[in-house]
Amino acid sequence: MSQTRIVEVRAGVLKKNDELARALRTRFEDAGVFVVNLVSSPGTGKTQLLERTLTELSAAGQRCAALVGDLETDNDARRLARSGVPVRQINTHGRCHLEAEMIGDFLGEWDLGALDVLFIENVGNLVCPASYDLGEALRVALLSVTEGEDKPQKYPTMFNSADVALITKIDLAEACEFDRGAAHAAIHDVRPGMTILELSAKRGTGMAEWHQLLADRRDTWRKANHK
Amino acid sequence: MSQTRIVEVRAGVLKKNDELARALRTRFEDAGVFVVNLVSSPGTGKTQLLERTLTELSAAGQRCAALVGDLETDNDARRLARSGVPVRQINTHGRCHLEAEMIGDFLGEWDLGALDVLFIENVGNLVCPASYDLGEALRVALLSVTEGEDKPQKYPTMFNSADVALITKIDLAEACEFDRGAAHAAIHDVRPGMTILELSAKRGTGMAEWHQLLADRRDTWRKANHK
Repeated sequence: MSQTRIVEVRAGVLKKNDELARALRTRFEDAGVFVVNLVSSPGTGKTQLLERTLTELSAAGQRCAALVGDLETDNDARRLARSGVPVRQINTHGRCHLEAEMIGDFLGEWDLGALDVLFIENVGNLVCPASYDLGEALRVALLSVTEGEDKPQKYPTMFNSADVALITKIDLAEACEFDRGAAHAAIHDVRPGMTILELSAKRGTGMAEWHQLLADRRDTWRKANHK
Repeated sequence: MSQTRIVEVRAGVLKKNDELARALRTRFEDAGVFVVNLVSSPGTGKTQLLERTLTELSAAGQRCAALVGDLETDNDARRLARSGVPVRQINTHGRCHLEAEMIGDFLGEWDLGALDVLFIENVGNLVCPASYDLGEALRVALLSVTEGEDKPQKYPTMFNSADVALITKIDLAEACEFDRGAAHAAIHDVRPGMTILELSAKRGTGMAEWHQLLADRRDTWRKANHK
């Protein structure tokens, strides 16, 4: 198998994914559901952030749901179900990212019109999920203070393709000797001007700003849709 | 492009990799160089562990070298070069793992016979590197206390394909409320009886045990080679 042939195959897979993602995006817009795709390496706290976000949004009267991608287990779906919102687990069985086709399949008979916000928790991987559009309105890349500050430069596509960067586990910043300035500079090096929030889902730090950002982005998205 | 076709292409790529890896393994055995492949998600501290390991092994008179895989930057190679040992950076330009072919290419004119130990730092990714044999004698999977304790169950192939598991950043265990028992159980769930070391390259905790493990495994490997 030549290198050229492999690249052709990959381009074919991506083209099909892009077409399916476009169809999904139209479907989400028609239903009025704001879709957020959370991407990061394993262990940045996507599930913990999502659990708290779902609980707080529900308490505020928002109708939410979540699709959770994982290679094998349903641990995350079980954790998220504690928030009381509808959750579905997508087991990728070894594939290192979610694809638009999986999202379409797993939405099943869900009434999207009855939802305000749908969160997608991608497989923990800083590489491949960057290349797969899932039809989301907002892509959020998480970077935890326990990772190196230079991760955005080492995985530029992920941060370049995201709309917002969240620096998570900020309560551990001191213990990790986290260099805040270096992390912001690294993010802005790959995506100048990108919005960055710092938060700790465990302690609640930054959650108000995160909810405000979601509300603002959703408003902008709704206005753009109704033009 | 049908799903079947994609699977066939992947199988073809892996078959070629396995053949190249076998040839590399023979080359390493003939040269008497013990090769260690470090795999983990981004941010578990592979580079920090390797920097300390190279420095201490060199000080003890061992002849070491390192090959470092990264998507884009040469940050890690520059860090490792501080140890004074020969280091080469492999930029994968977006590919999420190292392959045997890249190792062969980047070894270049290195005199393997003049080396005792060669470390390969894989791309930070808990999924794909598991499928690519690099001809190594020892595969070491790192899990940091800042990740969830259930990572081995969520990424079973990586831990299943490794020979040893290292729990890194153990100095942060308390701050992260790390559950040691749960992490060990999760590792042994996917690979019963696997050797587990806990260490902190920053503080030096567990480094003596790590060096002892490397020495023991190298002895076993040498004896097996000379039969």
